[in-house]
This record gives sequence, C-alpha cells and structure tokens, in this order.
Amino acid sequence: MVFGVKDMNLRIEPIKKEFLDIAWQRLNSLTKPPGSLGRLEEIAARLVAIYESPMPEIKKKAVFVFASDHGVTQEGVSAYPKEVTAQMVFNFLKGGAGINVLARHAGADVVVVDMGVDYDFGEIDGLIKRKVVKGTRNIAKFHALSRNDAIKSIEIGIELVKEYYSRGYNLFATGEMGIGNTTPSSAIVSVLTDSNVEEVTGRGTGIDDRIFKRKVEVIKRAIEINKPDASDPVDVLAKVGGPEIGACAGVVLGCASLKLPVIIDGFISTAGALIAYCIEPVVLEYIFASHNSVERGHKKALDFMRLNPLFDLNLRLGEGTGAAVAMTIIEAALKIYREMATFEEAGVSKNNK
Amino acid sequence: MVFGVKDMNLRIEPIKKEFLDIAWQRLNSLTKPPGSLGRLEEIAARLVAIYESPMPEIKKKAVFVFASDHGVTQEGVSAYPKEVTAQMVFNFLKGGAGINVLARHAGADVVVVDMGVDYDFGEIDGLIKRKVVKGTRNIAKFHALSRNDAIKSIEIGIELVKEYYSRGYNLFATGEMGIGNTTPSSAIVSVLTDSNVEEVTGRGTGIDDRIFKRKVEVIKRAIEINKPDASDPVDVLAKVGGPEIGACAGVVLGCASLKLPVIIDGFISTAGALIAYCIEPVVLEYIFASHNSVERGHKKALDFMRLNPLFDLNLRLGEGTGAAVAMTIIEAALKIYREMATFEEAGVSKNNK
Repeated sequence: MVFGVKDMNLRIEPIKKEFLDIAWQRLNSLTKPPGSLGRLEEIAARLVAIYESPMPEIKKKAVFVFASDHGVTQEGVSAYPKEVTAQMVFNFLKGGAGINVLARHAGADVVVVDMGVDYDFGEIDGLIKRKVVKGTRNIAKFHALSRNDAIKSIEIGIELVKEYYSRGYNLFATGEMGIGNTTPSSAIVSVLTDSNVEEVTGRGTGIDDRIFKRKVEVIKRAIEINKPDASDPVDVLAKVGGPEIGACAGVVLGCASLKLPVIIDGFISTAGALIAYCIEPVVLEYIFASHNSVERGHKKALDFMRLNPLFDLNLRLGEGTGAAVAMTIIEAALKIYREMATFEEAGVSKNNK
Repeated sequence: MVFGVKDMNLRIEPIKKEFLDIAWQRLNSLTKPPGSLGRLEEIAARLVAIYESPMPEIKKKAVFVFASDHGVTQEGVSAYPKEVTAQMVFNFLKGGAGINVLARHAGADVVVVDMGVDYDFGEIDGLIKRKVVKGTRNIAKFHALSRNDAIKSIEIGIELVKEYYSRGYNLFATGEMGIGNTTPSSAIVSVLTDSNVEEVTGRGTGIDDRIFKRKVEVIKRAIEINKPDASDPVDVLAKVGGPEIGACAGVVLGCASLKLPVIIDGFISTAGALIAYCIEPVVLEYIFASHNSVERGHKKALDFMRLNPLFDLNLRLGEGTGAAVAMTIIEAALKIYREMATFEEAGVSKNNK
C-alpha cells in the first residue's frame, strides 16, 4: 500500500487566496511602483498566506542539520572518508562549520540531529539523538533502510518541527551532512522524476572523472537491484535513500501541516522535499527553494516540482548553507511588507494612471 | 580634453595577487570541500585583496541615496509626476521607504543626498545638501548639465566616500531616486556601450507601450541633439546624464581610490558605475554588482563591464534596494572567511587525494 499523509495523521491544505489578496492589497499601497520589488513581494505575499495572518511575524528560526552515514561509501563514490560525517557533527556542535557561520548571520539556531551516523557519540551536549540506523546498508547490494525505518525517519522530521514550533520557532530550513549522500539523492531523483542517472548525477564534494563514472554505475546498479517503486515515495526512500533524506521530507510535511514556511537547501535537501512532494503535492505551496546548486540533479528536481530558487551562488556544500542565506532574503521580504510606509502615510503621489 | 582620474587627484591601483593568495590559502583550509561555497568564497577572497588585510573586518556600512530631478520628465517619459522625487526624499528621511527597510535589515545607514531635486528643502534634519542644479535641463532639447556641474557631481561622490570613511564606514553601496532617471541612464548606456537605444531602454517604474515608444524617441533625440562624445565619459554625463548618476560614479571612484569595496544597485547606479569604469577601468576590481534588474539596459551595462551580479529577484525599484540585499550576502561571505574552523582546528580529515 502506498504511504500517504493520512498514515501520519497529517492534514495539509492549500494556502488560501483571501490571504494572498490581503497581502497584495497592502503591497500595492506601499511607497514603490507596484511589483517593483519583484520576488521579494511574492515571497511576502506567500508568507502572509502560509501563516494565515495579515501581518505575520517571524519569531525564532532554526536550520535542521540531519546527519547520517551511507553504506554505499564502500563502493568508493566519495572524495572524503566516511569518518568525516561524525567529525563534522562535532564541528557543528562546536560552531565552526559553514552552516554555523551562516545561521548565526541569519539569526537562526542550528539543530544538529543524528539520524544515522555510524559512530557512537555517547553523552554529548547539543546533539539531538534520533539514530535510526548506524549507517545505511550499501544500496549497490541491499535496501538502504527497512520500510519501517524509512517511515520512522520521516516521522522524526515531522515530530521535530512540532517540538520546535511549540518552543516558539516558526521558520525552518532543512540541511544535512553525510559523506556519500549525493549518491542516494541522485538515485531518488532519477526514480521519482523518471530521469536518466547521468542527468541527475554530479560530482558531490569533488570527485574526478574515474570516480564519477563509478558513481553513475553504482547508482544504476542500486536502482536495478532494489527496484524502487516510483509510485510509492516511501519505498524509494527505503530502498535507495537515507534517514537524513527522510527527515528532510518529514520537515517539509511537518511545516506544511502546521502552516509554516520551509526553506530547502541543496540537492540532498531537495531530494527530501521531492519525497514529501510525491507523498503530498500540496506541500509545494509551503516550500521556498533557496538556491540552484552545482549538482546537476538539483535543477532536475526543482524543475520537476516547478520550484524557482532564489539565487545561484555556485554552492555545493549542503548543511543548509544556501537555505541560511535564503533566510536573510525571506526575512527581508517580510520586513518590506511590515515596515514600509504606504503612499498615504508618506504623502507620496501615486502614478499618473 | 578627456577627463581622467588625475584630474581628481586620485590614484587607483589594481588589487594585489599576494592578498588573493593569502585568502585562498585560508579558504582552502576551512572545513568544507575546496570551493564548495562557490561565489561566497570568491567574494571573501576579493574582499581580502581589496582591503589588503589577511583578516578584514566590515565596520560601519552606508547606502548613499542620491536624489535628483530631470527636465526630461516634461516629455512625459515617466509613470509618476516629478513631485514624487521630493516626496520620496521625505520618505527616506522618515525611514519608510524600501531602502530604509532593507538597509536596516543589512545593518547599514542610509545617507540621503540632494544632488539636484527641484524643490527647496530648507532646514531639514538628516538630508545631505549637495544640490548641483534644481533639476537637469530637458535632454530632448539641451545638455543636461554643464561640464563643470557634471565634474562637480562626481567630486561630491568622491568626497562623501572620503568623509564617511573617515567616520569609520568601510562598506558602501550606491542608490538613487529621481523620477525620469531611467531615461538619461539609457542614453548613457547606449552611448558608452555603443548599443541601440531600443536595446537599453526599459519600462522604468512601469510605463505602457505608448509612453515606452515616446521614451525611445526622446532618448534618440537627446543623443542626436547633444552629440555626447563616447570617448569622454564626463561629456556623456554632462550632455545626457544627471547629477545623481555622476555621484554614483564618484562613489565608485572614491571607493576604488581608498581600497574599499563598493556595491552597485540597479540600472541607474550601474550607469554611474559605467561612467566611472570608462574613466578608469581598474575600478572594476572594487565593484560588486548586486543584482540583475528588470531594466534591459542594466544587463547590457553589466555585460559590457563583465560584471556578474549576485542574484536576480526581478527588482526594479532602485534606491539601493538590491545593493542592500547584496550587502547581507557580502557580509555573510566575509564571515565564512573569518569564522569557519579549519580542518586542523576541528580535527576533520581532508579528502582522499
């Protein structure tokens, strides 16, 4: 049976046109030519509709960084040893990684979640422990996760959104860390968008031609052996995915169900969003795509969902870094809506028409 | 005689490769795959070289908003009455305009400068009075400015950078306000990039087909009648420009001479940067182009200077709004450089190579 939102007791509704109308009425009364702040105005309007408030307010912000290891690194598909996943978790907790810097800049907290790192962290401050597996199985030979673990990883994402929302957070972004995780992401995007593996496979953290060729072969083999069912996103997640990707999907579903915006980051985050979208397409109305990354499969997934990212700065780090930069733009958009003077307030003449 | 930087007692030098090397050495030691933060890393490297410091710091930030009226509005080329220029100056001073909101968001001050508004502001707090003319002459019939006034407007930009730099500011952006000022900007870009008027003329704040056709004719007539000399940027500024555009050029020249980065905004700011570039091409190394605006001449001018803007959010407001958004990205880039942990500090393994 195909897994749906009802299986998670979620209700996800489209945003309401009446709130878009309220937003545009105000936006067109502000001291600027109508529409002249372009996408900033569109973002503001959508925020009004998502929050269902004529004057929404962004309170606390969080970037989730979901970490996991991947058995497929045994196939030599990454430029970095798998130990780096755990090492980077320590780096996140100490505040020294790219996402820490960019989240601080955006005024957001970084929430580091162990979804499947093949390392025993023991007692350690600041780490949210939700380990589903100790690394996925090697998708070149086996299913990555059991179906139950795939569902569990999505549910963890949903639950974390609920928990942080109850603590006053109302703007979330997805990020991830996992050596090897562009490989399952390419597999997911290939299956769910019905694209050739070559079209959706990139160079991850920086592999050479030889390893790239091997990576493409490994992804093809993973799809051949596991036969993921494109009509059942959870099956795809279980067979060729990973728990951090499932958690990203869960955050998207959780945000949409609570009527909160969610900012997605690069290729892996977007693969997670794609899982959520294939479970329930209405989530689209709650997603802000931050950037177009260097990974070629990223654009494929964004186009499939008809998401238009805010910028392209040639990023390919992941961790939520692009989403954190987008957070500053999205917050700027809402400030335009909230803080600009109207023509009437400022005593400025409207146009000649 | 063609006007050059020596006429302004400026020395503008290329940035130094040794500082770029220092920057890239550090960037490649940070806990991320080399180059994975893409253009953020390039921005950081260029800031290191511009400031000539291995660990530069952004202190106070300012967005200059230069305001002026334009005689060419008599030809009916704008969607708004010319009174709006002065009304918007009051709006800037009260903090209610788009640039006020976005500059606050970026932590920058807005410096409002009257360069040529056709209104007597009297005594008014916060306005920097540098009125060169009370509105330019109608370029469809006359030179916009005298050559002396054109030079004076550039010098005002240079002097303001010096003044604010001495007060602790070290990151500047250019912005402007002036009903009708896309018309002189199109004329400038047409002449200096040797492009057809049609290729560099857009719809400004939002004119219809009829007014657009008239605008193109007016610009063609302005160029025909005034015969600006493309080899002498000051002649172009005087004959078909405006004092706010000259001040934008001055800010670019002033920043380059003081080894400071300068962020340019939309079409009019970029027309000013183009004047500066044609006076001294080395200024290019100090310029950050913030965005690609809706005005078609903007891309033409950016391409001519080989400037690659950071984003495209369909903005067409001016005032420095895009530059203020870019400021947050540029500051993020420097924080990456300054605050990220190195592989050594974090105990993270480097790649397999």
